[in-house]
Amino acid sequence: MRDFLSERIHGIDTSEIRKVFDLAAKIKDPLNLSIGQPDFPVPQPVKDAMIQAISDNRSGYTPTAGLIQLREAVSEFLKPKIGYEAKPENIIVSTGVASILFLLFQTVIGKGDAVLLIDPYFMIYPALIKYHEGRQYTIPEHFGKAEVDVLREQLKRDGVKLKLIMFASPSNPTGKILKRDQLQLLSDIAAENDAIIASDEIYAAMDYEKTHVSMASVDAERTVTLNGFSKSHAMTGLRVGYLAAPERFAPVVQKMVTLQQYTMVCSPHVMQWAAITALKTPIEAELALMKKRRDLVYGILSKVTKLPYPDGAFYVYPDIPIDSAEFVTKAIERRLLLVPGYIFSANRKSIRISYATREEILEEGAHIFCKMVTEYS
Amino acid sequence: MRDFLSERIHGIDTSEIRKVFDLAAKIKDPLNLSIGQPDFPVPQPVKDAMIQAISDNRSGYTPTAGLIQLREAVSEFLKPKIGYEAKPENIIVSTGVASILFLLFQTVIGKGDAVLLIDPYFMIYPALIKYHEGRQYTIPEHFGKAEVDVLREQLKRDGVKLKLIMFASPSNPTGKILKRDQLQLLSDIAAENDAIIASDEIYAAMDYEKTHVSMASVDAERTVTLNGFSKSHAMTGLRVGYLAAPERFAPVVQKMVTLQQYTMVCSPHVMQWAAITALKTPIEAELALMKKRRDLVYGILSKVTKLPYPDGAFYVYPDIPIDSAEFVTKAIERRLLLVPGYIFSANRKSIRISYATREEILEEGAHIFCKMVTEYS
Repeated sequence: MRDFLSERIHGIDTSEIRKVFDLAAKIKDPLNLSIGQPDFPVPQPVKDAMIQAISDNRSGYTPTAGLIQLREAVSEFLKPKIGYEAKPENIIVSTGVASILFLLFQTVIGKGDAVLLIDPYFMIYPALIKYHEGRQYTIPEHFGKAEVDVLREQLKRDGVKLKLIMFASPSNPTGKILKRDQLQLLSDIAAENDAIIASDEIYAAMDYEKTHVSMASVDAERTVTLNGFSKSHAMTGLRVGYLAAPERFAPVVQKMVTLQQYTMVCSPHVMQWAAITALKTPIEAELALMKKRRDLVYGILSKVTKLPYPDGAFYVYPDIPIDSAEFVTKAIERRLLLVPGYIFSANRKSIRISYATREEILEEGAHIFCKMVTEYS
Repeated sequence: MRDFLSERIHGIDTSEIRKVFDLAAKIKDPLNLSIGQPDFPVPQPVKDAMIQAISDNRSGYTPTAGLIQLREAVSEFLKPKIGYEAKPENIIVSTGVASILFLLFQTVIGKGDAVLLIDPYFMIYPALIKYHEGRQYTIPEHFGKAEVDVLREQLKRDGVKLKLIMFASPSNPTGKILKRDQLQLLSDIAAENDAIIASDEIYAAMDYEKTHVSMASVDAERTVTLNGFSKSHAMTGLRVGYLAAPERFAPVVQKMVTLQQYTMVCSPHVMQWAAITALKTPIEAELALMKKRRDLVYGILSKVTKLPYPDGAFYVYPDIPIDSAEFVTKAIERRLLLVPGYIFSANRKSIRISYATREEILEEGAHIFCKMVTEYS
């Protein structure tokens, strides 16, 4: 029988992660600290908006780029954060930020194009670079001018100009929020390279000390802002995300919309109406709960190991004394599910812990983690 | 400023169609016979299932391949049509058949891979072939052994083996349902070429004389079956479609699922539960209405021009005396919106008329069409 697979598809693989999940599926009553979604329900006003949309028969195709009402609402929502009013025609709504990322990469990244990530990075970024045959550069999350100068040297030596700078702040997996002076350094690199900055702000609502700065407020001209409703309003499975671009990248958005006609077609109609309501639905109680858990887990972990201060999102990313693959396997033997750091970083000695779960589970899990760190040190 | 667009994205374009829609947007009170979706609402039991899913907080991620309950229900639904029980692990649910097609093409079609279409074809098929740098072959819809022999000669001359055979029956744009002996000919070609047959059955529910034969019932081993809920249950904007494969193509499905992790992530959770209900919700009243319209429009049109007998779907595809781009422009001047045949075929002298609209609009539009055909003949 012939090999039916295309050359490009041989490049993607999730077998390593799957091995962990397969192992995990076999244990009873796990302490699951691996979860990448909120454990609170969609807020009631947003659920009501869905039900209303269903009653109103909002079931046909929307415009490919998304409902104009949603794009206008997104523009208004973003304005105080990014400092300008994005034109609705420069906004595309798709089936989640993952879809937005794929459309963006298909549209701008070809063979050999250089993409800068901040390490640790969300695991989808390097996978997308590899799939699109791009070339990956990284700087560490704590970067300052010195680290950026090292990158400049690398780029010069390789004779390469960056095409895309891609990061999430707050970060998945560390929860870290980048400082304004760091964003300024990224803006400088973008200008030197004539690059696009893709700022993934999917966790921006989870900003416990109100320190988040939108990249576009520092560099409006070169930044596209990505966000959605998966994390803020617990809509992970409902598939609404968006990208808002400045005029400079209007041709990029247009091509993304064209490609969407042949791929996702549109974000689910009912859920786009729900998203409009989500934009004006606060989540204070949910945030207070998450902050309490953050403080709990940070308090326990910081006594035994080092970890970046988790400003936002709902993850912590502590150092561990052994390789993360081995640590995760050993944790499973103790009913504890974690995500190994090596999928987020070149450094394999860290672990991602999600605190989007009940406190008693979180506490028990954190104590087992601490005991393991001490044992293997 | 640099060109931010990737080489691949330069290959997609919808400007020709957009020109028509831009023209159309300017006319008041149009007779719109261009619509590609049912005008009836989602059946009430399916809407109730959505509301129930929302109340039950079905808003988190589903498994990447789709809810196991939905994949089991799809397997059961397809069994009497395709003659075997597809394994749930060989079924993938995505955000509509368009997404399924994109995942399939990414997974199997690379540069130079040969794909056979039946002309007229759904417009997305040639666009996907071009985007994936494939090589397109066609046979006419009325094909018999003679036309297949011509194809065999072409393939032999070009030294090419088909990798994929792709068609929709009932057809968009003609409504034609392929006969069993035609499916057998396709099966023969597939065997000779060791090709995958992708049978797009999205219109299979709209089968007015119950003549539809599933390709997989003729060639279970080599056929993947594509279907969804957009047309049968008016869920176009709600984004649920699926592909069911035989064991032979299990590796293809697995890679499609892996790629889905980086793209659509999952079909909207709430809508997957709705789809389970849709599989057991009959649409007899809706079908009776569509059949009545089909008979009405066929009766009017067949007096002035030739058209394939519209067995199913909700389109007719009559011949016109002039180029379809010109015909559509002239129709717009008379408030009539149609879709030009050239996007579905190498033959530019046909027009697609959708009868998914109210009878008074349909009748008035059909009469204007007939007058135009007579005038330009």
